[in-house]
Amino acid sequence: MKFQMRSWPISTLEALAANKAVRVKAPGTLRILGLDPGLRNTGWGIIEVQGNRLSFVADGVVKPDTTLSLAERLTAIFLEVQGIVAAYAPDESAIEESFVNKNPVSTLKLGHARAAAMLAPAVAGVSVAEYKPNLVKKSVVGAGHADKVQVAAMMKILLPGSKATKDAADALAVAVCHAHHRTSVLNMVAKRNAG
Amino acid sequence: MKFQMRSWPISTLEALAANKAVRVKAPGTLRILGLDPGLRNTGWGIIEVQGNRLSFVADGVVKPDTTLSLAERLTAIFLEVQGIVAAYAPDESAIEESFVNKNPVSTLKLGHARAAAMLAPAVAGVSVAEYKPNLVKKSVVGAGHADKVQVAAMMKILLPGSKATKDAADALAVAVCHAHHRTSVLNMVAKRNAG
Repeated sequence: MKFQMRSWPISTLEALAANKAVRVKAPGTLRILGLDPGLRNTGWGIIEVQGNRLSFVADGVVKPDTTLSLAERLTAIFLEVQGIVAAYAPDESAIEESFVNKNPVSTLKLGHARAAAMLAPAVAGVSVAEYKPNLVKKSVVGAGHADKVQVAAMMKILLPGSKATKDAADALAVAVCHAHHRTSVLNMVAKRNAG
Repeated sequence: MKFQMRSWPISTLEALAANKAVRVKAPGTLRILGLDPGLRNTGWGIIEVQGNRLSFVADGVVKPDTTLSLAERLTAIFLEVQGIVAAYAPDESAIEESFVNKNPVSTLKLGHARAAAMLAPAVAGVSVAEYKPNLVKKSVVGAGHADKVQVAAMMKILLPGSKATKDAADALAVAVCHAHHRTSVLNMVAKRNAG
């Protein structure tokens, strides 16, 4: 039940060693981390924005060992996402607003996983924007009720090079949604902080 | 919307400076951190166990600024509890199992706060035990349906020196519950890890 104090897991370090090229940010670009949290699968995706041009940087899925305790699984999500934040240095991050599930136990679990995922960028000083699931789907497919398959297919077209597996595709989709809506969100925050 | 990277908040550092004496652990004692999470009020309490003797070390309540965003409030809870873990170096920690609230939105909020609070000890390698709310009440008052006032009154008697305000009393109660039940929990974990 003991963890070692560490800043990120070895698997992330290995991924980085194999992936040096994409870590260097082109000048004048903005990097966005998208997150699709879950206790079993937490998808993540990084995109770069340069003017109107979006490009794929990296994506993946964090899969905590399901035999671990809740605290240990949350730790795995937090440390792995912390490693991704340290490695890719996103400027901003985005996550779907949690909708309340019909099953209250699932709702509670999702709340835990979501907090662990969003804490990683937040603790590192990276802003976390929240978007309604329907807005995310509308941003990438054009319809608020698109299914996961449509989202994944669209991500492969919008972001060539992405593996865009199911959970990673949803994470990339929320990053794309943020790229489209970030200016209005940032204005809103500035207004709130001013008033 | 930006945070500074830091290991714990200034308020905790100030509390520590005023509180040096209680940080030094007596030899042969075990320190337990109890947590009672909430987005508005996260209670915490530290007790020491030496044989059958329990003693009070410190308690308090983390109150994130309610005008902040969700990610910022979770960060405040996480960093503040991380500071408490760093300062008091508990050997083990305990938290109530989350029960599903009638209001699904409250359930989701509690899930977020709970994850932020339990991640702080977990990331530092401190085990996090979970107890049913009724077991916690039974451990300290003798009845599973005791109210908050009874719990707080009992904490003041069991742990002289504690302020045991409402939320801090519940946090101390879960620490006391863990002191009573930890041996059986630890055996269970050892068995699970062996099998």
